[in-house]
Amino acid sequence: MRKKIVILGSTGSIGQQTLEVLRKYLNEFEVIGLSGWENTTFLKDQINIFKPKIAVVKNEYIAKKLKNDLNNLNNIKILCGINGLITIATLEEVDIIVVAITGIASLIPTFEAVKRGKKIALASKEAMVVAGELLVKEAKLRDAKILPIDSEHSAILQCLKNEQKDYIEKIILTASGGALYNLTETALKNVSIEEALNHPNWKMGKKVTIDSATLMNKGLEVIEAKWFFNIPADKIVIVIHPQSYVHSMVQFIDGTILAQIGEHDMKIPIQYALFYPNRTINQFSRLELTKMGQLTFKKPNIKKFPCIKLAYQSLEIGGTMPAVLNGANEIAVDAFLNNQISFLAIPLIIQNTMKENKTNKNLVLYFTNFLYRIYSS
Amino acid sequence: MRKKIVILGSTGSIGQQTLEVLRKYLNEFEVIGLSGWENTTFLKDQINIFKPKIAVVKNEYIAKKLKNDLNNLNNIKILCGINGLITIATLEEVDIIVVAITGIASLIPTFEAVKRGKKIALASKEAMVVAGELLVKEAKLRDAKILPIDSEHSAILQCLKNEQKDYIEKIILTASGGALYNLTETALKNVSIEEALNHPNWKMGKKVTIDSATLMNKGLEVIEAKWFFNIPADKIVIVIHPQSYVHSMVQFIDGTILAQIGEHDMKIPIQYALFYPNRTINQFSRLELTKMGQLTFKKPNIKKFPCIKLAYQSLEIGGTMPAVLNGANEIAVDAFLNNQISFLAIPLIIQNTMKENKTNKNLVLYFTNFLYRIYSS
Repeated sequence: MRKKIVILGSTGSIGQQTLEVLRKYLNEFEVIGLSGWENTTFLKDQINIFKPKIAVVKNEYIAKKLKNDLNNLNNIKILCGINGLITIATLEEVDIIVVAITGIASLIPTFEAVKRGKKIALASKEAMVVAGELLVKEAKLRDAKILPIDSEHSAILQCLKNEQKDYIEKIILTASGGALYNLTETALKNVSIEEALNHPNWKMGKKVTIDSATLMNKGLEVIEAKWFFNIPADKIVIVIHPQSYVHSMVQFIDGTILAQIGEHDMKIPIQYALFYPNRTINQFSRLELTKMGQLTFKKPNIKKFPCIKLAYQSLEIGGTMPAVLNGANEIAVDAFLNNQISFLAIPLIIQNTMKENKTNKNLVLYFTNFLYRIYSS
Repeated sequence: MRKKIVILGSTGSIGQQTLEVLRKYLNEFEVIGLSGWENTTFLKDQINIFKPKIAVVKNEYIAKKLKNDLNNLNNIKILCGINGLITIATLEEVDIIVVAITGIASLIPTFEAVKRGKKIALASKEAMVVAGELLVKEAKLRDAKILPIDSEHSAILQCLKNEQKDYIEKIILTASGGALYNLTETALKNVSIEEALNHPNWKMGKKVTIDSATLMNKGLEVIEAKWFFNIPADKIVIVIHPQSYVHSMVQFIDGTILAQIGEHDMKIPIQYALFYPNRTINQFSRLELTKMGQLTFKKPNIKKFPCIKLAYQSLEIGGTMPAVLNGANEIAVDAFLNNQISFLAIPLIIQNTMKENKTNKNLVLYFTNFLYRIYSS
């Protein structure tokens, strides 16, 4: 029987690539639901190809537009907003939820899917950054499985496969350094949006590309790694690896390092999460080891890229502080992308916001109350 | 209860390093037997430290010398020759046999240990090269475990840990290239013994260092890999990686590559084999990723180093041909080390020997007869 799958954020970069993978395995997966928010052009095409039972968009207005575009030919239910997302994330019949919504909007549907004991392939790192403690606790209780869809945590998951947790000496997250790593501090002051969006190795959405340029992306991944692998932050280190072929590593207590290496292709970690714990043959292009040139590894420059330090600090403070970090970052990046602040203002805004906010140590209680307020409103 | 261990070839490079590892874990291992062949000075010291019950040397003359050296203070049994090796390799009480004898002399005691269902940590690659089919078949029958002690196959074993065999797309053996990789074909003609012994990364015995310079070492490892991991030769490739930090890799059917990375320290694979399938904490120096410089990967130059091709050919012909290759190589390397032939004569002698010999396809029958003749003589 085919596995039933829902994709939240199907019109984004990860969503599209997930459908590209699924297209090759339609005898193994059935797409039940898609959410596309505002982009009805893409969503219409996806609906025509994958024939889901339900689609979710932002609001009634867009729902109407989509219905028109589809010419009422499809016998499809169209839902709206956060309630729509929750509905398709919790359908009884569905096995796997791919969560690929940008930003914190991913948290509520992810949490609801976890509560139903689903298998979740999580691309939206904000959910884990903000409420990792809550999600992991709930997943354990409900026997849900949260699998990473990003090259770094997928790499770590593969290096750790069936190794014992107490064999881990260090988790080594590799970072490309993003678009601006080699600029001087002075040059960083005047960085344009276009320059910051010009990632050398990976094609990704705008938010994550800017996070990559500030290295906050790697800071958020440190926080994620802590929750995904239940590892204290002082056992997680970052190494700058500009070529991005080594997607991350684990060093064990005997000194051995295992590394996962591959092409710059998000379809690989997507497929790994969809089929986990199995591997499946594919025709993706293979990395030619003899053509990839020289691989290098450097210590990150924390002075030039203070977002890394802020992320570690937020973990050390704990509780809701990673959520504060993430919230401030979302707003600052948005402001940068709208030409309202400079590139170097991003870490400053986050740092000030962290100073002005006290942490609430009881994250689980905090979020339970928070979510309760949302649901009952 | 402590695991009981025997080391065949304890005075060689791997033997000494094995004892160095064991010295840290004397509450977990008890050394029951050591064999040192001719080097009584080293062997005497080892006996004084590890207090084995039995030692094995080459002959009665050396046994007498050792007894004298020991001043009869140790209550130790001293045995001689191949029968001595077989005796300590098959002691009822012993759990682990480390086989670290240079050359084909390792085969008979290894085979006898396999027949008793022992756990064997195999450093002597010739045994597997010459009679891999026999050893693997017998090990399966007797529930014996043959684990590699070399950085490459240990790396592959770790990359494959709990992955399914049919997930393997390629095994990628890394090769430093040895002492002479960058010489021109003309320069290779006049290579001295000292130049060929000057390995850039690893401190090893003389035979294996010359094999490394001819790249026959890597050819032999291809043959070993076939038997250790039950993989056809066309799925095993060699990549030149002069820095020797990536000890080998496995590419899976989904395109993912797992690699094992570490210091140039044989104690790491030795410890891995001794404790397998567990990992154990140690104080060996850790690889500083940010200090290892650039990693590079190149296709091997088969024209300059034809031993690689000869090894693949011997596997393709099958049967006893890898044994012919190995025998010719042992004699040629010995002749080179004794200044009797030039460096480039090594592959020529092997090639001619392979031409002059027909393979015996029934390797198992061949070796069973061969071993029977030896035992009954």
